[in-house]
Amino acid sequence: MSLNGKAGMLAGVRVLDMTQFEAGPSCTETLAWLGAEVVKIENPKGGDAGRFANTEKPGIDSFYFMQFNSGKKSLTCNLKTDEGVALIKKLVREANVFIENFAPGVVKRMGLDYEALKKENPNIIYASVKGFAEGSPYEDFLSFDMIGQSAGGVLSITGEPDGKPCKPGVTLADTGTGMLMAITILGALYRQQATGEGEHLQLAMQDAMTQYSRLAYAYRDLNGKAAPRAGAKLFTTGNAPTGIFPCKPFGKNDYVYIYTTRAGNHHWERLCNLIGRPELIDDPRFSGPKERADNEEALDAILAEFTKQYTKREAMKLIGECGVPCGAVLDVSELYDDEDLNQRGIFQNMQHPERGEYKMPAWPVKVGDAHLPIPAAPLLGEHVDSVLSEWLDMSQEEVEKLKNSGAV
Amino acid sequence: MSLNGKAGMLAGVRVLDMTQFEAGPSCTETLAWLGAEVVKIENPKGGDAGRFANTEKPGIDSFYFMQFNSGKKSLTCNLKTDEGVALIKKLVREANVFIENFAPGVVKRMGLDYEALKKENPNIIYASVKGFAEGSPYEDFLSFDMIGQSAGGVLSITGEPDGKPCKPGVTLADTGTGMLMAITILGALYRQQATGEGEHLQLAMQDAMTQYSRLAYAYRDLNGKAAPRAGAKLFTTGNAPTGIFPCKPFGKNDYVYIYTTRAGNHHWERLCNLIGRPELIDDPRFSGPKERADNEEALDAILAEFTKQYTKREAMKLIGECGVPCGAVLDVSELYDDEDLNQRGIFQNMQHPERGEYKMPAWPVKVGDAHLPIPAAPLLGEHVDSVLSEWLDMSQEEVEKLKNSGAV
Repeated sequence: MSLNGKAGMLAGVRVLDMTQFEAGPSCTETLAWLGAEVVKIENPKGGDAGRFANTEKPGIDSFYFMQFNSGKKSLTCNLKTDEGVALIKKLVREANVFIENFAPGVVKRMGLDYEALKKENPNIIYASVKGFAEGSPYEDFLSFDMIGQSAGGVLSITGEPDGKPCKPGVTLADTGTGMLMAITILGALYRQQATGEGEHLQLAMQDAMTQYSRLAYAYRDLNGKAAPRAGAKLFTTGNAPTGIFPCKPFGKNDYVYIYTTRAGNHHWERLCNLIGRPELIDDPRFSGPKERADNEEALDAILAEFTKQYTKREAMKLIGECGVPCGAVLDVSELYDDEDLNQRGIFQNMQHPERGEYKMPAWPVKVGDAHLPIPAAPLLGEHVDSVLSEWLDMSQEEVEKLKNSGAV
Repeated sequence: MSLNGKAGMLAGVRVLDMTQFEAGPSCTETLAWLGAEVVKIENPKGGDAGRFANTEKPGIDSFYFMQFNSGKKSLTCNLKTDEGVALIKKLVREANVFIENFAPGVVKRMGLDYEALKKENPNIIYASVKGFAEGSPYEDFLSFDMIGQSAGGVLSITGEPDGKPCKPGVTLADTGTGMLMAITILGALYRQQATGEGEHLQLAMQDAMTQYSRLAYAYRDLNGKAAPRAGAKLFTTGNAPTGIFPCKPFGKNDYVYIYTTRAGNHHWERLCNLIGRPELIDDPRFSGPKERADNEEALDAILAEFTKQYTKREAMKLIGECGVPCGAVLDVSELYDDEDLNQRGIFQNMQHPERGEYKMPAWPVKVGDAHLPIPAAPLLGEHVDSVLSEWLDMSQEEVEKLKNSGAV
């Protein structure tokens, strides 16, 4: 992979990836995008459980799988055979990183836990992603994204103030966890490059959620109680007007988010001038952050009268241009079709051998002059020959023998 | 910093940090936790805008600031003086990474944009975090977390199905953006260590949200329309029973999340046995994933009858132990006080010079045998002398001169 004439950031890094679904695969996909060689180990019968489970075309890779496995290689390996397990151990000797997110206890049963693999390669960076941490009362429990978000506190702070807990539409306990593991693996790789040393890294979805919820912990410290749910507003108070305001044509997502600071009146004053109500600047109900917070309902009504005259894009333009933080509530289809996001490379096409062009979100960080490209997600077992030959110097004969034994 | 007898992962890495609030500081704090030396540049008058703005004790650092600046050094620098800007340029020559999240246009005006700093240090990794990307129609707009989440699609997929968009309580456009930038900086550092080369990295909050919303894009691809809001349930359908179920004593967060797979009946059958209703296994209304989805309401009522007999912790234990994915909806105070999370080091104490012991979430990845420690957040200007001496070899006399000039 070449970036503006430079080598990929992680050129030469080899990752042995025994993860499936999303938390692990989002992590290793990121490493692949940054230039690592990621070899995904898959069950010869069906592969990653996310590969065919969510597809609309039986036998063809799902969009879900393609989104989280771009740029990886696929090596099938039957972990229920001795040859399969032995093969993994050989590959570990050639790898910088090993990562797994099996159900609790599985790697130990297969003889692929950290203690075992360290014997094969003392400098391995061994990463485990779990739902609940080793040592937790729930360490043997199964988990998925929504479970991690529940037990990690995210649902408790999401939803309407008088309503039930809501699950954010984002898969924070999956990809959010994967991103924290990617960071830590990259830290360990930096040291491995300098000193040769490996590391043992473990992350649980439940625990990962605290990293994204810290404003709620600061709220707890200030108020001595758990942060509440606040709908589209903030559980930290005092920033009125702040929230979503209705726009034409009043569909489910026809709102514009407006935020005003409590550090002064300047945002508020800009708004008053914009909406043609400069007299409100001197209105004692709205004269300072505290007064505006006390009269938030009246304030919201005044502002809604203004936003209702416009579409959310029009309102965003007017309000943003006058120097007040605001953003239209854009939905997934609007973003997918957005000219700017497509032109800048936030969305890009993957060239998939079976599906042809497939458009999906790319790595959102711009590197040099461009966003990193999105290579295809691999077909099941696509790279058996090349990986065994390049990593283990296996002859075609040896590879065939392994294939015939049912190990790959 | 020593980790199980090893050097910090990023030992020797120097980061010049000109960020404030959360998106940037969460990124550089992570680098500090991994062992980098992070020098935070702060306005001598008040410092980071988050330092005193959200505090309950005027003049004492806020919990908010402490949470996002652990382990950094603070160097005051008046960027409105020529000496201040010149000082930054000198420091850049000694740094591996420079990072900023100023409002649009500010670094250019100060002469601290990438082109300018590359002249000082051609190998610098220069990172910018913005609300909207350069080149976007909104590039000049101000932004904060809630704006990034709105314009990035997150609000549109969060909330009750028949309700308005909700903002997740997590600060995903702040910390979620910071984590993606941390990953990319770490990738660039890996290459910098190998080849000496620098890189220019740019990330906008709006764009960062796509990385966490990819399940919603896969939904769009499958269904040809934007992913909807689904309350505590999933916008992907077919996993009944799945969602939150009420528990004693029926408070705002007294729910247990239960998830069952649509890849087979095994979770469902375990539940039937657990709740003492084995006859439901053969009930034609619930015989397969499709049938259960079609009769979800009846199903939810049956399951709620069971969960209502227990507290959420009791229900979680019963259901989890029988092999069905589940998690209590824990709130922020429950997690803060949780014995397991405290014992394992997910929460740790910072020793702060003014506030004493302060407990907060630590880096959730376990590294070797333990979680990384949480060093104190710096007082404003605490490290002026040491940084100028260590980075620039300045004598005490020269430092005093700079102080007297008002530059630091």
